[in-house]
Amino acid sequence: MKANLDCIPCFQRQALQAVRFITNDIQVQEQVLRKVITALYDQDWSQTPPQIARIVHKIVKEETKNFDPYSKVKKEYNDRALKLYSSMRNLVEKSENPLLTAIRIAIAGNIIDFGASSSFDLTKTIDSILTKPLKINGFSKLTEVLSKSHNLTYLGDNTGEIVFDKLLIETILNHFEINEIQFAVKGAPIINDATMEDAEYVNLTSIPNIKFIKIGIGIPGTGLGREDKEFLDIIKKSDMIISKGQGNYEALSDQHKIFFLLIAKCPVIARDLGIEIGDIVLKG
Amino acid sequence: MKANLDCIPCFQRQALQAVRFITNDIQVQEQVLRKVITALYDQDWSQTPPQIARIVHKIVKEETKNFDPYSKVKKEYNDRALKLYSSMRNLVEKSENPLLTAIRIAIAGNIIDFGASSSFDLTKTIDSILTKPLKINGFSKLTEVLSKSHNLTYLGDNTGEIVFDKLLIETILNHFEINEIQFAVKGAPIINDATMEDAEYVNLTSIPNIKFIKIGIGIPGTGLGREDKEFLDIIKKSDMIISKGQGNYEALSDQHKIFFLLIAKCPVIARDLGIEIGDIVLKG
Repeated sequence: MKANLDCIPCFQRQALQAVRFITNDIQVQEQVLRKVITALYDQDWSQTPPQIARIVHKIVKEETKNFDPYSKVKKEYNDRALKLYSSMRNLVEKSENPLLTAIRIAIAGNIIDFGASSSFDLTKTIDSILTKPLKINGFSKLTEVLSKSHNLTYLGDNTGEIVFDKLLIETILNHFEINEIQFAVKGAPIINDATMEDAEYVNLTSIPNIKFIKIGIGIPGTGLGREDKEFLDIIKKSDMIISKGQGNYEALSDQHKIFFLLIAKCPVIARDLGIEIGDIVLKG
Repeated sequence: MKANLDCIPCFQRQALQAVRFITNDIQVQEQVLRKVITALYDQDWSQTPPQIARIVHKIVKEETKNFDPYSKVKKEYNDRALKLYSSMRNLVEKSENPLLTAIRIAIAGNIIDFGASSSFDLTKTIDSILTKPLKINGFSKLTEVLSKSHNLTYLGDNTGEIVFDKLLIETILNHFEINEIQFAVKGAPIINDATMEDAEYVNLTSIPNIKFIKIGIGIPGTGLGREDKEFLDIIKKSDMIISKGQGNYEALSDQHKIFFLLIAKCPVIARDLGIEIGDIVLKG
């Protein structure tokens, strides 16, 4: 998906949010915003939003010498989600349709997205999403593909959310013949996206036969780009691919094999999917 | 009030909204956005938001050769408000406190602001604001100053809203000894702000002893700047000044003699006033 013109001011809002996590110095904030504006101006706006986002967040990091502006909120939301984990697992286990409930909870976790917004209510979102209709509903296709699959590639999105991804993966392992999992984290901090450190923190590493792949953030050595051949080969070779969140959708919406689970949180994504902001999606 | 860093991406959102009212051509939209970005970069960001907004909207107009991008929605909201006028007047006349009810309706009309947002619900806003507490409540001071005043300067804001301003002015004339009104409109189109044409369209011109003054939009010949000595002298000489909306507040918040009536529609204004978005204000 190409960036929309609406993304350009939105990236600046994101940069301001990030720099404000680091410093209250208005002069530094203005300096970062001016550098971001200059860089955005120089970019080709037909790239995908994540490709442009990398450049924006690289500037924030370099200008402030802080390479993880969201570290505090990342930990906070991991902890909040971990506290909810056992009650969510109970919900799934007692549910008439454990897979669908686990999917709903994993989608609800996608609200923890500092890229799309700066305020959200996690528990309220979970409550509403447990009963909300899926605006795009590929559930039966998903169960069909899952029942024929032996391996699963799961593209994670945010911290906190990753706890509910773990619950969904555990639920899948309980009900389907999957014996190999590849979980994609970011190769270095960007916004509040989950990294390997978060996977360890929430004990995703304890899942049997799980392997991790790293998605790069546009800085050499941080991992594969979602547009790289090597990454697209991983997608091709996987029996089943689940992708979480807006960023993965923006980068990979032209890949038809992927099941996209997300909450539409911005008008550009909502328009692209033909739905409203706040709608929930399982697009297969 | 100085512009906040948050205003910079917001101006770009405004420019996109304006150009989309004129053309669906993405290339023209991108060209306008790039010109706006360049101009914003070159500006001193310690100006007031309306001073910067003028430059932004001048670019949209010049690039598209359309000097009134909001003309259609301006007429639409004048017509919608005119349709509500007699039921609103009934509400005021039957009210225990006609002045307060007319003030509430005039504040509700301030929701018609394409600068702050691109979507709003007029009738829903009126319903809620009729009973909503004024978060900043200078009503008793306002009645006190009104009862000692012989003339009133009223700084209008948006089309549509101007119909409810008329109702408030009529209510004031019915209950106080005001014999002279100066009403400020914009000297040329900017966003959906009311101009002389709108004052005529909604018959504001029929009020006895009303005079109009024009506030400029940064283009020579369109009227006085709110920062000009001549304009500030008008404020000084007035017994009573009522100011509507965010733009007038942004430009004149350091003038202590003014009663500001508005709905807080953006985080910058809300922070400046120490209130939340959606709160209503009668600040004296």
